[in-house]
Amino acid sequence: MQEPSVIASPSTEHPFLTAAGTAAAQALLGAAEPLLIPRRATVFAPQDATKAVYLLKEGSIGLSGTEDNEARGVIEILGPGDCFLLPAVILGGAWPFGAEALTPCRLLRIPADAFHATLAAEPGLAIASLALMSKQWRALADQLLDMKINKASDRVVHFLAQRVLPNGRVAMPEPRAVIAARLGMTPESLSRVMHGLEAAGVVRLKGRRVEVADAKALRHFAP
Amino acid sequence: MQEPSVIASPSTEHPFLTAAGTAAAQALLGAAEPLLIPRRATVFAPQDATKAVYLLKEGSIGLSGTEDNEARGVIEILGPGDCFLLPAVILGGAWPFGAEALTPCRLLRIPADAFHATLAAEPGLAIASLALMSKQWRALADQLLDMKINKASDRVVHFLAQRVLPNGRVAMPEPRAVIAARLGMTPESLSRVMHGLEAAGVVRLKGRRVEVADAKALRHFAP
Repeated sequence: MQEPSVIASPSTEHPFLTAAGTAAAQALLGAAEPLLIPRRATVFAPQDATKAVYLLKEGSIGLSGTEDNEARGVIEILGPGDCFLLPAVILGGAWPFGAEALTPCRLLRIPADAFHATLAAEPGLAIASLALMSKQWRALADQLLDMKINKASDRVVHFLAQRVLPNGRVAMPEPRAVIAARLGMTPESLSRVMHGLEAAGVVRLKGRRVEVADAKALRHFAP
Repeated sequence: MQEPSVIASPSTEHPFLTAAGTAAAQALLGAAEPLLIPRRATVFAPQDATKAVYLLKEGSIGLSGTEDNEARGVIEILGPGDCFLLPAVILGGAWPFGAEALTPCRLLRIPADAFHATLAAEPGLAIASLALMSKQWRALADQLLDMKINKASDRVVHFLAQRVLPNGRVAMPEPRAVIAARLGMTPESLSRVMHGLEAAGVVRLKGRRVEVADAKALRHFAP
């Protein structure tokens, strides 16, 4: 794993900073360290989960956890505009969750003490954090329902449908094994489902690239 | 479904009110309606999810959701000291999640407008809400990992191990079908796993009652 490298120019726009208000944004930016992290590098290891809040500006981050049996699972894949791992910084304590760059990423790292100081001084930050946590709770609850109600092939279709670009391609820049783990399945099962969708004329597979062949059918297949 | 009935005497202790501080607790209690809800009655339907925050004092609540295909799934089973559905009240909008009493329940219902007014006036409530949301996010993330990494029989053992009482019984007052749905499995699968654990000498099944026969084995079986 490569070490994150510090870059010179922070850019200010991030939806979480906008929501927190000017005073809170200034305070957080004053303490923030801009980072460029290469694909497959660690953003933080589990023992460091409570040390900083990260604002994701570009790229894709995989949030993973270990269960008691040491197997690793992907909780969520985060994208631009997301913020992590707020619950760990707010509560402190032991968090068996780590974050990894799944594509090259541009982030702002805000140390936990600066976050807490701003939280105490600027009520706008608490309100913005509550809204963010509410959205993230909803995303996990939706994902839990998807896991409990839908079979693996339906979960794949659902995932593809959410990632269709205007040009008909499906954005899947992350390693396939990570996408499979996010969907709670093996890479082999994911590959089988994708080839089944190709055989059914729903998608076209061109190497790593995925294109939608029949958008109506994809929506129809989606649970 | 029976209508919730209003009872006369609110009692003040609830961990969320304690965490919010005296002023916020007084304001929330001033607007709170105490409720006694019988087993299997609806606490709120999805269209009412954003109308009030509920503090659970006694009993067990099932939080369920519908996916696009109208199948219902149990997101979480909540217990005394819990508070729901904060993200819906904070964000507003459409929430396909409803709550049902799985045992007789004692709750406090705090209307959304009173919650928002207190949130604006008392910074302690925002901080207490952030801590609560962080714990609830963690609970869902842990559950997602359990769903993605562990097979159904391991999830059952994990669930039983968390509910062992000092007297060796396993607290399972909720309908078995709801527990099965919470664990992402059919009632038949849950029953099969339970009888398998009985055959292995880990638990004793006496009608609806579950007793731990071998606590060490249960911990050993737990993932």
